[in-house]
Amino acid sequence: MVGRMAEIGVILSGIGGVGKDLTRLLSARPGYKLAAAYTRNPELAGRDLGEHAGISSLGVEIVTDRAGALAQPADLLVVATTSFLQDVAEDVRAGIHGGLNVITTAEEAAFPWIIDAQLADELNHLAEAHRVSVIGLGLNPGFVFDALLLTASAVAWDVESIRIRRVVDVSRFSAAVLRRIGIGHTEEEFEAGVAAGSITGHIGFPQTFSLAARCLGRGLDRVEKHLEPFIAKKRIESDNLSVETGETGGFLQRVVGFVDEVSWFEAEFIAHLHLPAVEMNAQDSISIEGYNPIHLTIDPGCNPQLGTVAMLANCIPRVVEAKPGFITVADLAIPFARETLPGIRFS
Amino acid sequence: MVGRMAEIGVILSGIGGVGKDLTRLLSARPGYKLAAAYTRNPELAGRDLGEHAGISSLGVEIVTDRAGALAQPADLLVVATTSFLQDVAEDVRAGIHGGLNVITTAEEAAFPWIIDAQLADELNHLAEAHRVSVIGLGLNPGFVFDALLLTASAVAWDVESIRIRRVVDVSRFSAAVLRRIGIGHTEEEFEAGVAAGSITGHIGFPQTFSLAARCLGRGLDRVEKHLEPFIAKKRIESDNLSVETGETGGFLQRVVGFVDEVSWFEAEFIAHLHLPAVEMNAQDSISIEGYNPIHLTIDPGCNPQLGTVAMLANCIPRVVEAKPGFITVADLAIPFARETLPGIRFS
Repeated sequence: MVGRMAEIGVILSGIGGVGKDLTRLLSARPGYKLAAAYTRNPELAGRDLGEHAGISSLGVEIVTDRAGALAQPADLLVVATTSFLQDVAEDVRAGIHGGLNVITTAEEAAFPWIIDAQLADELNHLAEAHRVSVIGLGLNPGFVFDALLLTASAVAWDVESIRIRRVVDVSRFSAAVLRRIGIGHTEEEFEAGVAAGSITGHIGFPQTFSLAARCLGRGLDRVEKHLEPFIAKKRIESDNLSVETGETGGFLQRVVGFVDEVSWFEAEFIAHLHLPAVEMNAQDSISIEGYNPIHLTIDPGCNPQLGTVAMLANCIPRVVEAKPGFITVADLAIPFARETLPGIRFS
Repeated sequence: MVGRMAEIGVILSGIGGVGKDLTRLLSARPGYKLAAAYTRNPELAGRDLGEHAGISSLGVEIVTDRAGALAQPADLLVVATTSFLQDVAEDVRAGIHGGLNVITTAEEAAFPWIIDAQLADELNHLAEAHRVSVIGLGLNPGFVFDALLLTASAVAWDVESIRIRRVVDVSRFSAAVLRRIGIGHTEEEFEAGVAAGSITGHIGFPQTFSLAARCLGRGLDRVEKHLEPFIAKKRIESDNLSVETGETGGFLQRVVGFVDEVSWFEAEFIAHLHLPAVEMNAQDSISIEGYNPIHLTIDPGCNPQLGTVAMLANCIPRVVEAKPGFITVADLAIPFARETLPGIRFS
């Protein structure tokens, strides 16, 4: 039987879009207490976390002093700062030393061993020693091609191949993220950025592929990657970035994972500032082929911002109760939405 | 990290369609050993389980002696006999006493407290005392409107209402099951059977509703049920049952769960011997409304026979590692397909 847990104390590292949304969502739910929040941005220091998030005061002052924040009694730390394992490691380590379970939105942390096995092992052993769980979680990796893909595969007898596709409206992404994933560049800049690794497309497919291979008992030989731009035929204006005619308004990313030299996992990721310009709509799809195949579509596709925060919040109780160590979404109990307080409406 | 478990020994109670398919599937996977199988059908006694399942000999003799079967070293018992909690209780009890985790396909066992709280509590305490897990599992309840619905809800901020719909081709169901759910009757027989409770439609919506309400923190006030037949406009022949013109070839079942007197959970179940006769195709859909809604479709819909067996097999490791007691699918770790041996093809 599913019981209700006692109040879970949550500390935030990073109070950008994800941190603000998480503040709104957890404040609307019984059983959670926002215990502290810290940031590297001195301009935000001293503000009230609730007011910063656009809701009423929570009596929690945003601080730049990590040690002070981590000294507050709590159960879990959410590190929502960057995409990269190396860049969140110090916060994760500090959380573990403070006896906290840790969720980070860093995509690389969804399956950290393929990024830096030594660092992943170090954090794993540290988390085991402190009896806490550490996990990388978000919408993707985390939900669409991870928790949901794995759950969908539960009706398959065998899995001969997987095809996934995500079409995403990125118009609400920050300008910095848009530029990093590949939007707002000339064709030459795009090609040079992809070659140099400064333009990444979606970060997380290696993690998704590795997790699926691990769970389904396959050994990935190699992964092929392809990234090509959609060139804007006319100017696209959006909240955070405007793209001129001839610049990249979006991209198509294709990643293929091979097992025994046969394509086993194919992923497509299409992101655009204005999807109608490429005659598409936001949609996610999962096809698992084999004996008793399954074809699943989410239409319209999952909202990146809202979905990420919901997945984080909904997994918090699961992470608190999970086994110690650096774990993956496949180690969690089935996640689900939680009770919100009566009368709370978000829109 | 997801590790490989040692070999899991499985004993079967019931070797009808589900038992046979489970034998085929587990035989194709590393890490499982079919340890014993028992049945109430004396005609099957002495046969080899593998040959009975249509594969090569497994060296496991089908017996009618439950005590003898349960004396084999094993980890888990699968009880695949009937839909009803009361009717599987004796097998479940015997399995627990034998130190076995137990999965039963009885739909009523997916949330047994609403059927017989005293019996559910007794089995729960017994399972806790013997440090084993007991669970009711299948495709539905179990997967479509349970594991998958809950997982899908992980991207929701709040859940204002749920709408689910399953359209199923039942042409491969046995004649006994078809008649019990409502197919192959005159209109008068159908109405009388529904009134008397001998015609049930799909069994399991009360379990699905109760589990969702428990997880999402809602209190169900009441459930309204409606069952109406599709009358065949011409004769329908199928493998196990043929229906004459004017008899019931299928049915539409609608179940609504109310929270605070507002419709919170609406389920539709359409079953037919020949879906084209009602201009439909097998399809499953889940809509979760609220802030950040999610609309998910499985097309074609999940195959009832193959999906049930896959879900059972894929959950076996999760049930073995689960906490002791009478648990639900919401207590399990995320299920997923498992490795099958190279070269195994089922079709």
